[in-house]
Amino acid sequence: MSYQRFFEDAVDTLRRERRYRTFAEIERAADRFPHAVWHTPDGPRDIVIWCSNDYLGMGCHEAVVEAMCATARKAGAGAGGTRNISGNSHAVVELERELADLHGKEAGLVFTSGYVSNQTGISTLARLIPDCLVLSDALNHNSMIEGVRQAGRDKQVFRHNDLAHLEELLKAAGDRPKLIVFESVYSMDGDVAPIGAICDLAKKYDAMTYLDEVHAVGMYGPRGGGIAERDGVMHRVDVIEGTLGKAFGVVGGYITGKAAVMDAVRSYAPGFIFTTALPPAVAAAAAASVRHLKASAGERTRQHAQVAKVKAALDAAGLPQMVTDTHIVPVMVGDATLCKAASDLLLNEHGIYIQPINYPTVPRGTERLRITPGPFHDDALVARLADALVDVWTRLGLAFVTRAEAAE
Amino acid sequence: MSYQRFFEDAVDTLRRERRYRTFAEIERAADRFPHAVWHTPDGPRDIVIWCSNDYLGMGCHEAVVEAMCATARKAGAGAGGTRNISGNSHAVVELERELADLHGKEAGLVFTSGYVSNQTGISTLARLIPDCLVLSDALNHNSMIEGVRQAGRDKQVFRHNDLAHLEELLKAAGDRPKLIVFESVYSMDGDVAPIGAICDLAKKYDAMTYLDEVHAVGMYGPRGGGIAERDGVMHRVDVIEGTLGKAFGVVGGYITGKAAVMDAVRSYAPGFIFTTALPPAVAAAAAASVRHLKASAGERTRQHAQVAKVKAALDAAGLPQMVTDTHIVPVMVGDATLCKAASDLLLNEHGIYIQPINYPTVPRGTERLRITPGPFHDDALVARLADALVDVWTRLGLAFVTRAEAAE
Ligand SMILES: Cc1ncc(COP(=O)(O)O)c(C=O)c1O
Ligand SMILES: Cc1ncc(COP(=O)(O)O)c(C=O)c1O
Repeated sequence: MSYQRFFEDAVDTLRRERRYRTFAEIERAADRFPHAVWHTPDGPRDIVIWCSNDYLGMGCHEAVVEAMCATARKAGAGAGGTRNISGNSHAVVELERELADLHGKEAGLVFTSGYVSNQTGISTLARLIPDCLVLSDALNHNSMIEGVRQAGRDKQVFRHNDLAHLEELLKAAGDRPKLIVFESVYSMDGDVAPIGAICDLAKKYDAMTYLDEVHAVGMYGPRGGGIAERDGVMHRVDVIEGTLGKAFGVVGGYITGKAAVMDAVRSYAPGFIFTTALPPAVAAAAAASVRHLKASAGERTRQHAQVAKVKAALDAAGLPQMVTDTHIVPVMVGDATLCKAASDLLLNEHGIYIQPINYPTVPRGTERLRITPGPFHDDALVARLADALVDVWTRLGLAFVTRAEAAE
Repeated sequence: MSYQRFFEDAVDTLRRERRYRTFAEIERAADRFPHAVWHTPDGPRDIVIWCSNDYLGMGCHEAVVEAMCATARKAGAGAGGTRNISGNSHAVVELERELADLHGKEAGLVFTSGYVSNQTGISTLARLIPDCLVLSDALNHNSMIEGVRQAGRDKQVFRHNDLAHLEELLKAAGDRPKLIVFESVYSMDGDVAPIGAICDLAKKYDAMTYLDEVHAVGMYGPRGGGIAERDGVMHRVDVIEGTLGKAFGVVGGYITGKAAVMDAVRSYAPGFIFTTALPPAVAAAAAASVRHLKASAGERTRQHAQVAKVKAALDAAGLPQMVTDTHIVPVMVGDATLCKAASDLLLNEHGIYIQPINYPTVPRGTERLRITPGPFHDDALVARLADALVDVWTRLGLAFVTRAEAAE
């Protein structure tokens, strides 16, 4: 039997459907982010990154980098074991305290990634609640979907951010235990969940709530606690999940909540128990980042300002952006091949790196460029971005927005 | 409804069954590993770690630490995105080349952990093989079990390292596609799989093979390629999986194999696609470690020597160790409470840290102390360890091995 053929066929399918992905090889330059080096077959080229999820550039912040280096020199490059077997470093314990404080919760629990925190966190929570029904937003991230699936519990999917539909399902469920699983900022459309209203429903129908703030922590709320902090409803959410790999600029994930809940997940979650702990150097870097963003609003303020400038520049140029209230700026293309072509032209001709977002990350027909302006994209870079997009749109014959459409 | 109660009850169950785990808070000291600081409520205390999975102390190796620091300073503390969206760093691409070379394979693929590489790797491989039957060793690690479960394919468990049973199942399966999933060194008993013989069976019955070398990479084979390298059968295994968090001393995981197979997993595995990539600083540190251990046999030689000395010292003292051919030295206690008590006494009275290994990590009745001697445990430390164990064994009234039993 040719096993190899199975894998070649699987990849051929992707090529045929024009969703085979190639990864640009990038070398970030910490001292001049968002500038970076792109390694091409013809040698290195200087580019500007416009699609980073290091939203605030904290991965390049001196306090973060130096915390990583100092801790690596002091305690080594790795944890040396699972949390239970010699890997429970001082640094990771401190990080958990920092995160619990960030979200105003009793305790925090750190995982190797946000993905793992959702996958093993949600599945463990749902398994520990007898006869639990999971209510899951239709646009939840893959890590949450996998967590719900792994729980093996009954689940119902409510229409994205649709309170009426959620209420209908809650009511129909009667008085069995229920877990509502949702995000604050949805990363591809950049829209925001009505967290307070979902908490109202949870209270009315006696459900537990689990909120993914992966694309919000560090960036919203007076201390960077996320949308729930901004909206003043953080205390009403039972479990808040986040990542250390996006606005905090490092890697890793976590959940926060009541001490008893964290202790149960700590004790039962296979994806937490049976894996090497986060290195102390990584934990210390993440803690430095969280601490910095609790005290400093400068990065957030400047990010919001530059996001507004990008949106205004794209509007002025007639580029078809999806309107959002967040730092995520999707520019719609609506076709996989054209989306890839636009991205390639931007990179090759303009030194601007914006990865195409195609199916299955977004539905077919909604392919897009997803732009994430940050505090380090200065006004000159914003102007260059708008010009480059106009050039690419023109060359590919993509549609501009007319004044009439824009006024609609 | 009191959701909190569900979690409290779950934790109470663990306490009642005496398998509630507490984590010792440890601060490793890179410049004097295996010495470390134990943070107690009464203040810091100096201890010696004897249960680290940083088996060779590479996490504290200067080349590894400095690679992490240099890359963090150059490229920042994080990757800034998923592999597809701006997180495909130069360092991670180089690491994958290094790993492919280590195992003599066409390509490598890096994940956030060994856990994730097994979970999403195995499930993706099995899903991409039509009508695949998964044959899984009975003692496989939780990450492999979860990977097999997530695949949703038919599976059969063969008795641990039992070639006759495996052959029986292979024969009965007929000519449908089959994937054999197993480990080289089993971490709790320290025994070793007959890799060559399993490859013989795979060939005879036309099955694909997936081998977890997590507890062997870096430590066995002329270049640290693992048991398969040592046994001269590396080229016969289809997919070799490993971790960057144990003998390589950092964090992360990987698989290696044919380019087409790696490309398919890269393109389909959700746990690879939808998560922030390993930071370049982590990838560079891991690559430095892999490179060092390819060229240097010193750490391996010295580890094997110190392991032999520990085994001899325990034998001489009549301590009931399980006989192994590897660097893993299990000392049997056979009771959860006594095992915890032994560990506590070692730590409190002797400053020796060996985590108790209880159910569910090992079967009930086989509770043990799992000792992992490394190149930095010098002869004086070995002597102190044996003395401390004898003291603890005596105080707890645990059984020693008589000469007659030892001769059996
Ligand atoms: C909503 C959401 N949750 C979780 C994750 C996973 O977090 P991490 O990248 O830390 O694994 C992502 C993306 O990566 C995400 O978009
Ligand atoms: C056999 C085996 N495979 C995989 C893993 C997971 O590797 P990692 O610690 O890198 O997640 C472990 C333990 O941690 C293990 O013992």
